[in-house]
Amino acid sequence: MSRLPLFGFFRRMLGQDKAFRQAIATVTGRTPQNVRLYHLAFTHSSVVKQQGTEAGRNQSNERLEFLGDAVLGTVVAEYLFRKFPYEQEGFLTEMRSRIVNRESLNALALKLGLDKLVQLDPGQGRAARSRSVNGNALEALVGAVYLDQGYKAARKFVLSRLVKPYVDVKSLTETTANFKSKLIEWAQRHGKAIRYELNGEARPGGVMEFTASVVLDDEVVATGMGLSKKQAEQLAAERALTTLGV
Amino acid sequence: MSRLPLFGFFRRMLGQDKAFRQAIATVTGRTPQNVRLYHLAFTHSSVVKQQGTEAGRNQSNERLEFLGDAVLGTVVAEYLFRKFPYEQEGFLTEMRSRIVNRESLNALALKLGLDKLVQLDPGQGRAARSRSVNGNALEALVGAVYLDQGYKAARKFVLSRLVKPYVDVKSLTETTANFKSKLIEWAQRHGKAIRYELNGEARPGGVMEFTASVVLDDEVVATGMGLSKKQAEQLAAERALTTLGV
Repeated sequence: MSRLPLFGFFRRMLGQDKAFRQAIATVTGRTPQNVRLYHLAFTHSSVVKQQGTEAGRNQSNERLEFLGDAVLGTVVAEYLFRKFPYEQEGFLTEMRSRIVNRESLNALALKLGLDKLVQLDPGQGRAARSRSVNGNALEALVGAVYLDQGYKAARKFVLSRLVKPYVDVKSLTETTANFKSKLIEWAQRHGKAIRYELNGEARPGGVMEFTASVVLDDEVVATGMGLSKKQAEQLAAERALTTLGV
Repeated sequence: MSRLPLFGFFRRMLGQDKAFRQAIATVTGRTPQNVRLYHLAFTHSSVVKQQGTEAGRNQSNERLEFLGDAVLGTVVAEYLFRKFPYEQEGFLTEMRSRIVNRESLNALALKLGLDKLVQLDPGQGRAARSRSVNGNALEALVGAVYLDQGYKAARKFVLSRLVKPYVDVKSLTETTANFKSKLIEWAQRHGKAIRYELNGEARPGGVMEFTASVVLDDEVVATGMGLSKKQAEQLAAERALTTLGV
């Protein structure tokens, strides 16, 4: 973090830094102190890899994402712990993964307009953007707020700018209802055969990511991803129900 | 958390509460404010399940463990982020999982003497204790400190009472060296056939736990567990090297 990528330097030369600061203040609700942290949070690895140096890779938002992921997980854990005093650990874990999963973070990032702040290598823009670029930038932003403003401020940002305005906890609770059972019922009523295709892939950091597809009479009707087989299947089942108009 | 288990009530009746408070102050370095949180942190589910009520299950330390696990992960993430400014996300993730894995937490809990504070159902004492009871209680304790004293105090507890005195970060860095390669070299030198047996098990919360066994000429010489195949195999390889005196 000792040197900014040239990119940031030129951008600042061009006088865009004030606008960037203002954008951060708008998104986070606080004036940034160390603006370099926020530049880093929005620097996708494709930008620094383009510059070709190994050292440059430390200048992307991946380290901040690692930190922000942890902070986000803690804030949401406490939020759920207090909100559901009579629910058990398994429920809290499931609810948290529904709030902070990849797809949910991508959607939250778009709601905050982070896609306009993310710096990508324009050459591979689409390919890179198609993955979890925005959600990852959101995690990195939480990490930046934590380092820049402390835990309390990061907690406030997560709760007041993400969870409370955009996460419908009540409906998430209800949707923890069993989509797989609903789908089986539907299939039985309509005389269809239903099965799941599952694939697991090890991701960096020792996490398994599962992809489940709902196959209805030999046709894939929906796919879901998650960090457990159950989660992937539930998501796939939920989407299949939507697709089928159930 | 609105009612204490009867157990805690009787214990307090017997005047042991002052000793408990003192033990907590010694372990955490701070006088507890809400002592019920700490009682909860040391209440294994076997004690409350014994009482037989569904509601009672919320009175065990599992919820606090969920919260403490997140807090611990965040504190260690920040610690590593600052300590290794030029290492990438993958290194930080690997190092963190080496610090906060199940076996490491169990060992840390014993060093703090938490086994003397954990309340188990004496009927199934051994069976329960053989698992991760103490490590889980340590996570729950971190959760209790967080709720009782705030993030800064929890961070200080983790860093000054756990990481700095007991975690040899330097040696952990060195041991991220490839044990599997070393083991293969050794096997080749000694004309032995080596393979790994892998089993994965889904754990509550959507996490996969892997068990790897090193099989040397059809004999299991060591076993390791981890949250990724790689981690389990590395640990198994490390232990095999120790067993073989390499």
